[in-house]
Amino acid sequence: MRIFRLTNGESTFQYAVVDGKVFELGVDPVKALISYANGKVIGLGAEVNIDVNQLLSRDYRSSGLRFTKPYDPPEVWGSGISYEVSRRRYSEEGEVARIGELTIYERVYDAERPEIFFKATANRCVGHGEPIAVRGDSEWTLPEPELGVVITSSGKVIGYTIIDDVSARDIEAENPLYLPQSKVYNGCCAFGPFVVTPDEVKNPYSLQIRLRIIRSGKAIYEGEVSTERMRRRIDEQIKYLIRNNTVPDGTILMTGTGILPGRDAALRDGDVVEISISGVGTLTTPVIKLKVE
Amino acid sequence: MRIFRLTNGESTFQYAVVDGKVFELGVDPVKALISYANGKVIGLGAEVNIDVNQLLSRDYRSSGLRFTKPYDPPEVWGSGISYEVSRRRYSEEGEVARIGELTIYERVYDAERPEIFFKATANRCVGHGEPIAVRGDSEWTLPEPELGVVITSSGKVIGYTIIDDVSARDIEAENPLYLPQSKVYNGCCAFGPFVVTPDEVKNPYSLQIRLRIIRSGKAIYEGEVSTERMRRRIDEQIKYLIRNNTVPDGTILMTGTGILPGRDAALRDGDVVEISISGVGTLTTPVIKLKVE
Amino acid sequence: MRIFRLTNGESTFQYAVVDGKVFELGVDPVKALISYANGKVIGLGAEVNIDVNQLLSRDYRSSGLRFTKPYDPPEVWGSGISYEVSRRRYSEEGEVARIGELTIYERVYDAERPEIFFKATANRCVGHGEPIAVRGDSEWTLPEPELGVVITSSGKVIGYTIIDDVSARDIEAENPLYLPQSKVYNGCCAFGPFVVTPDEVKNPYSLQIRLRIIRSGKAIYEGEVSTERMRRRIDEQIKYLIRNNTVPDGTILMTGTGILPGRDAALRDGDVVEISISGVGTLTTPVIKLKVE
Amino acid sequence: MRIFRLTNGESTFQYAVVDGKVFELGVDPVKALISYANGKVIGLGAEVNIDVNQLLSRDYRSSGLRFTKPYDPPEVWGSGISYEVSRRRYSEEGEVARIGELTIYERVYDAERPEIFFKATANRCVGHGEPIAVRGDSEWTLPEPELGVVITSSGKVIGYTIIDDVSARDIEAENPLYLPQSKVYNGCCAFGPFVVTPDEVKNPYSLQIRLRIIRSGKAIYEGEVSTERMRRRIDEQIKYLIRNNTVPDGTILMTGTGILPGRDAALRDGDVVEISISGVGTLTTPVIKLKVE
Repeated sequence: MRIFRLTNGESTFQYAVVDGKVFELGVDPVKALISYANGKVIGLGAEVNIDVNQLLSRDYRSSGLRFTKPYDPPEVWGSGISYEVSRRRYSEEGEVARIGELTIYERVYDAERPEIFFKATANRCVGHGEPIAVRGDSEWTLPEPELGVVITSSGKVIGYTIIDDVSARDIEAENPLYLPQSKVYNGCCAFGPFVVTPDEVKNPYSLQIRLRIIRSGKAIYEGEVSTERMRRRIDEQIKYLIRNNTVPDGTILMTGTGILPGRDAALRDGDVVEISISGVGTLTTPVIKLKVE
Repeated sequence: MRIFRLTNGESTFQYAVVDGKVFELGVDPVKALISYANGKVIGLGAEVNIDVNQLLSRDYRSSGLRFTKPYDPPEVWGSGISYEVSRRRYSEEGEVARIGELTIYERVYDAERPEIFFKATANRCVGHGEPIAVRGDSEWTLPEPELGVVITSSGKVIGYTIIDDVSARDIEAENPLYLPQSKVYNGCCAFGPFVVTPDEVKNPYSLQIRLRIIRSGKAIYEGEVSTERMRRRIDEQIKYLIRNNTVPDGTILMTGTGILPGRDAALRDGDVVEISISGVGTLTTPVIKLKVE
Repeated sequence: MRIFRLTNGESTFQYAVVDGKVFELGVDPVKALISYANGKVIGLGAEVNIDVNQLLSRDYRSSGLRFTKPYDPPEVWGSGISYEVSRRRYSEEGEVARIGELTIYERVYDAERPEIFFKATANRCVGHGEPIAVRGDSEWTLPEPELGVVITSSGKVIGYTIIDDVSARDIEAENPLYLPQSKVYNGCCAFGPFVVTPDEVKNPYSLQIRLRIIRSGKAIYEGEVSTERMRRRIDEQIKYLIRNNTVPDGTILMTGTGILPGRDAALRDGDVVEISISGVGTLTTPVIKLKVE
Repeated sequence: MRIFRLTNGESTFQYAVVDGKVFELGVDPVKALISYANGKVIGLGAEVNIDVNQLLSRDYRSSGLRFTKPYDPPEVWGSGISYEVSRRRYSEEGEVARIGELTIYERVYDAERPEIFFKATANRCVGHGEPIAVRGDSEWTLPEPELGVVITSSGKVIGYTIIDDVSARDIEAENPLYLPQSKVYNGCCAFGPFVVTPDEVKNPYSLQIRLRIIRSGKAIYEGEVSTERMRRRIDEQIKYLIRNNTVPDGTILMTGTGILPGRDAALRDGDVVEISISGVGTLTTPVIKLKVE
């Protein structure tokens, strides 16, 4: 099963895809995911007569129905430096924070405890076709394409999604104490177009993640990574996320990035970011640059 | 005006103190604070016949009415290294993260951009007489007594409160990337007993903050600082908090700590933390040690 | 436009039919009707892929999607003796209440003030395919097929529907003071399958209303009447309904019956009642007999 | 226990009187009454410092706190002709509806089945100090002072109150089919000031009900009756009310009137109606005359 939502700009409409057919979903999507994880399909209404591919080609400037966030996640958290590449690349950047000889990224990569950080609330997230943002005070903001897992408050995985941990890398690089400002702001996070149930994903460690940054119709960056390169296992990340920290049902955990474009791929107003995960879909989001009032 | 809430363990009851008298408050406390900031007292009901001092002496183990959080804050954020003492003390701790020669704390202290971090949601906060927590995996957790400001989404200050940014210093010290884990967990934040309107505080830069850690009836730590030692002005902190980051009305910003007990003051199960701010009140919270399941 | 709802037994799904196509309806149906009356179509979602006729053939015992009430009406009111036939037939029944020489029905028929009575709340109403009821203490209960008008609190007509003012005629006949008991009980009212907007009805005084009572597959009663025989005009009925009596938006007024089956058509458990109004649709409801506990 | 509510014109505040002390009530009043009937006092907050008698002297024109409805009843129903006096007086009025030789009132008085009628919803009810209304098209409207019982959906009595079944007697007298118009309109029902739990009433059949209609400071009518004269027992009334008719928890049943002022006591704009029931309290309501728009 996969769930998604459409909007007409005023109301949202929620759906479940079951056996290739699209049905209305009459219950809260998180409830439906929990129920599905327990073996029950609940809340299906009528089959709807829509062309999903055609709808996926529309964005927030289209009139009529278009995609939006699959649901409103109460909290989004991230796990960092879970791929070897991220340890390396982060540590290569100019002046890096070090503790003794090692960079803080090298340290966390090798440590038992993962990096876990607060990323977003629902109102800071956007969906497919909706604009992610570059902070007005950032010149170097990058997408971080990741596999997102939807969990219950007890840490059970009830869904997978594509998620973009958009990050103001220049602010983050200046001082690790600026991490929240580089990570949490309006339009800092996109996810969707779907949340896919675990039975459709089977092995989350054999997924191909692809990133393309498109400017004026041309890809200015392309990269990919397999989730088999994820060093921190998802259950380990979840274990630390929920340790003495009760998260609400439907919380999303971003499992870390393994694709790191350089400084020359800094997002600009008007760019389009396209992230694909094999078997999960393709998340496309335009980019807007915010202003500092 | 000052607002507070009591609970009987099942329901909560909200009040406003006006001219020394306690009245029921019939509207949402944040709405009442916004209205008061605009010159109007709203939502008052009957005067209640309670002995506030006697109620302040009770805690979460008392039966009957007792204090709880003054309201449910949608988000709590913190600002760090805003006092000179914090810059110094943090930088003295064993192995500290450095960028070049300077510690990350020294850097942020001198930088234009303050440290801003996500601290808590309502369910992670406790009120007066309710237990703050030490993570099960922390051996060195400290209270951070601070002046809290309640703001609107446009950054207007509508109230002041005493707030405790309880922090797992050992986890934080290990790697700055662990800051969220040291800061955000169940029982990581206490505030209250009251939210006090700006007219009662007048000058937020001339308040005396006092901290006492009490163990078996004896103070094992006492410290104090004046908010005049706050280097980062509150409006500057707020400016960065809300830059491209829409916070909900009623968000609390913790303005930083100027009292830093050492490693020997690590909180233990059964301790009591007492924080006073002149003219604002005294926030008392027992301490419990969580378990790692 | 016409609106309706389906249920899967747990959730309800609301729809609007526009230009012959069925769309999801993302806003409250009463809001949609008010908006439509003001010239705006609002809240449409995706087109749904359903066979309305096939769905109309199902009832409350079917598994899967089926029809239910088009919306939950806050109040349902009735107007009585608005057709000449009702004046006559009611007055012919055995011992009838009289004031002076005239029966109370003759009196009200000729009077300036119409009979207006409270009929039902949402929980006492059923929809297409759902069972209407015969009270456990009634041996002679009849359907009263009527044109229903959906109005706003200011009395504006925003929709038409088929409505069945099921009545325990024996209880009513015993004493006019028993009217509420004959009229108001669980399952006393059915309406639907659709609410149709005024532009689809055009002239409410030229509609053909047909009633069939079906027992064991055979029609044991058939009757019909045209709304042109309605003596009390709808706006006059509404005028008295809302005089000094504020009704909520979405209130339904039943405009009176012009078809009166006799005592031999008394509804029995297992019967099916079928009411058609030209251009509005056909409302089919099974009948169940309640028990007196 | 007795419950009541105050309003400041914008918010309402609910209270419970226990052992002569007034406490805030933190739970829904109907829930509190159900719980109390099951032996548990729930939802009490702080004692409030109010002078109930002084508050009872205020009305809807007073600024500051004043009484309002004790709660919002989902439905109010009435039972008629339950006192012998009502049978007689009603039957004496000019042209009365008769079935055969007997008036409909004489008939219902002697019949097994009582008269049960729908009276009001919450928005049509007022509380102590709030205005009851005379319809714009009625010249002869009278108060009907009654004992009200608050019941659960299963018919259990969880409270008693004073209730005024204000009735447009001229409209009702014209034709029994006009009963709903004489009974149901804006401001047709007042109840309060309190709902009293059954343990405080003990014997509902030994209560003295007193009515005074005051005009320009002088009583123009005074009457009284004891509930021992009630012929229809309350449980019998309830039995018929809920027979095949599910009412919501907190529904009020008016148990009938035994005081019937004549035509010369017709209520006028500016009158005050005062109803007392021994041990239950005194309900005072001003009178306003509505207009026919």
